[in-house]
Amino acid sequence: MPQREENRGPLNQISLREFEHTQKYPEEKIIRLGIGDTTEPIPDIITSAMAEYARGLSTVSGYRGYGAEQGNKELRQAIAHRFYRDVGVKGDEIFVSDGAQCDISRLQAYVDTSVIIGQAGKFHDETGKYGGIVYMNCRPENNFFPDLSKMPRTDVIFFCSPNNPTGNAATRLQLKQLVEFAKANGSMIVYDSAYAAYITDGCPKSIFEIPGAKEVAIEVSSFSKFAGFTGIRLGWTAVPKELKYSNGFPVIMDFNRLACTCFNGASSIAQAGGLACLSLQGYMALNSVVGYYMKNAKIIREAFESLGLKVYGGKNAPYIWVHFPGSSSWDVFAEILERAHILTVPGIGFGPGGEEFIRVSAFGHTECILEASRRLKSL
Amino acid sequence: MPQREENRGPLNQISLREFEHTQKYPEEKIIRLGIGDTTEPIPDIITSAMAEYARGLSTVSGYRGYGAEQGNKELRQAIAHRFYRDVGVKGDEIFVSDGAQCDISRLQAYVDTSVIIGQAGKFHDETGKYGGIVYMNCRPENNFFPDLSKMPRTDVIFFCSPNNPTGNAATRLQLKQLVEFAKANGSMIVYDSAYAAYITDGCPKSIFEIPGAKEVAIEVSSFSKFAGFTGIRLGWTAVPKELKYSNGFPVIMDFNRLACTCFNGASSIAQAGGLACLSLQGYMALNSVVGYYMKNAKIIREAFESLGLKVYGGKNAPYIWVHFPGSSSWDVFAEILERAHILTVPGIGFGPGGEEFIRVSAFGHTECILEASRRLKSL
Repeated sequence: MPQREENRGPLNQISLREFEHTQKYPEEKIIRLGIGDTTEPIPDIITSAMAEYARGLSTVSGYRGYGAEQGNKELRQAIAHRFYRDVGVKGDEIFVSDGAQCDISRLQAYVDTSVIIGQAGKFHDETGKYGGIVYMNCRPENNFFPDLSKMPRTDVIFFCSPNNPTGNAATRLQLKQLVEFAKANGSMIVYDSAYAAYITDGCPKSIFEIPGAKEVAIEVSSFSKFAGFTGIRLGWTAVPKELKYSNGFPVIMDFNRLACTCFNGASSIAQAGGLACLSLQGYMALNSVVGYYMKNAKIIREAFESLGLKVYGGKNAPYIWVHFPGSSSWDVFAEILERAHILTVPGIGFGPGGEEFIRVSAFGHTECILEASRRLKSL
Repeated sequence: MPQREENRGPLNQISLREFEHTQKYPEEKIIRLGIGDTTEPIPDIITSAMAEYARGLSTVSGYRGYGAEQGNKELRQAIAHRFYRDVGVKGDEIFVSDGAQCDISRLQAYVDTSVIIGQAGKFHDETGKYGGIVYMNCRPENNFFPDLSKMPRTDVIFFCSPNNPTGNAATRLQLKQLVEFAKANGSMIVYDSAYAAYITDGCPKSIFEIPGAKEVAIEVSSFSKFAGFTGIRLGWTAVPKELKYSNGFPVIMDFNRLACTCFNGASSIAQAGGLACLSLQGYMALNSVVGYYMKNAKIIREAFESLGLKVYGGKNAPYIWVHFPGSSSWDVFAEILERAHILTVPGIGFGPGGEEFIRVSAFGHTECILEASRRLKSL
């Protein structure tokens, strides 16, 4: 059967490298700090709510069939209240989804999805870029924020903060510039705030903290990383009523149509869990889990810093972005795997701007992170 | 704010009519036999499995993050074993989804989705049809199966059996003709078998019962109507390895890419429930629920037959398709609502071939169905 090479993204290649490594060193225990998947148990108050909801489906009074495609009203209001109280986004502007990736896919904003439907333009081997996409180069030299005065206009600006993979959160000033840029160009911002719960230093947790953002942005977010819901699947998109096409038509009406046509709502059990996450007790318990991962992040930062390396991220996000100037990110990935039996992700896998970097994830049991730190320090 | 009329599908209009009716008759109890949503509790063995899985997420050993995008291996194998054992579709050809509608949307086969992405062609007011879509007229005159000798070639043939809305299941002979037609034309069949559990008379429950179908068809199906999972969200698509593009490339490889890019897997809790549905005990309990709805269907059939009407469906599907020759389906809808306070769906809402018909759903508590029957018989 033919093998289509273009089908093999970086994650496939990492799996392949991992497989080869286990064949070569069957005795060694690999520590996986590659894929950013949550590892810690979900607080009991949240899983109990889901268990209770599930059991209720066996009763006449508790059974529910189709819910609203936009999500349960109570959950939509709880999301608005918990995350957008101060910026005035209301429950009827929240669309519950089965996760940020799925919503972004429906928005066709993700590069891979654009490639599939043939809207990304031609791929250029020399640059590693698609012709139909403008890349915003975010590197230490520019404080992980593009020089907007040199950016061309696009219909959609996809921006993720705290950023995956760099772990960097945009400042209030940077986001103000972004909103002004979008407004001046008639662009729409798709703002991914899936890691907002990890922000510790006062950077905006929502694009809507920026005045005027409601007229140019929608925000896609998720329970995945905030509540360990990666397998349970729950997220949301906030679409302000103020956001309108150039002809004055509200985007929220088209978004509603998309939700009702392409989607039948997130799982009702997941939504019951989401509601428990947003209760005071659930929310406090989740903050402890976030704190646990951020302690891991500190351990990883210190390990790489002790090797004399320049380290970014890990302060407002569970990702650490380590710089190896002049090195190929695949070479660094291979050396760390070979010598420390630790899996990371080569930066180039996230796009051409990631060369010379690796991404290290802080998701993991602390004992594994400590062992990884020991191995790194002894390199 | 402008109201975009093209945004208002038939279900919106039904809601509006229902609202107006409740304003006019605030004392009357409306019986809703319109939208096809399940109403009966889910057997305890299934909800217990979901509750147990959910609770396990609070333990170190039970916690799971991202699952495979294609679904849990055990569930994929259980689906293959339960539904495709005799036709040889294997677990690695099953892709678990969050429901048939979502998968079909990803396949861009549904009319409304095609309209959104602008591939349905121009809408013609006179015919109620989109220019880029070929409609297969399925009416009593042709035994609900098109004369294929008069059908033009299309890339994709979307076929649903048992059919929503007509409640008709295609015979083995009809499906043989469909498979031969697709083979002769180089078309791919997207076969929707979401109501297969309701077949009682020996019609094929899967397109793959037809020899050669694996080379021309994929099958989209669901736990929604079979297990009352409309709110829980779980379905699957079977993509045989034998299905290839004209250049010999296997469709399953592209489908896998689509699943991994646009989707992060169905909710893990829903998948735990799906596995319980397919255990012997769970499956037998679900067959009882299906039997309950089919008793409702018989009551509805008899009620309309007692009025001297020609009635279709309700024998292999939970939908009854009632013919009112010469009448507008909206007029019939309005009269039944006005005189019996029963909500149905006007056939034209499903496409131009549905004129003169209404769809009546057998999903409901039997006491409501019996009351609806009494009201209809006294008209």
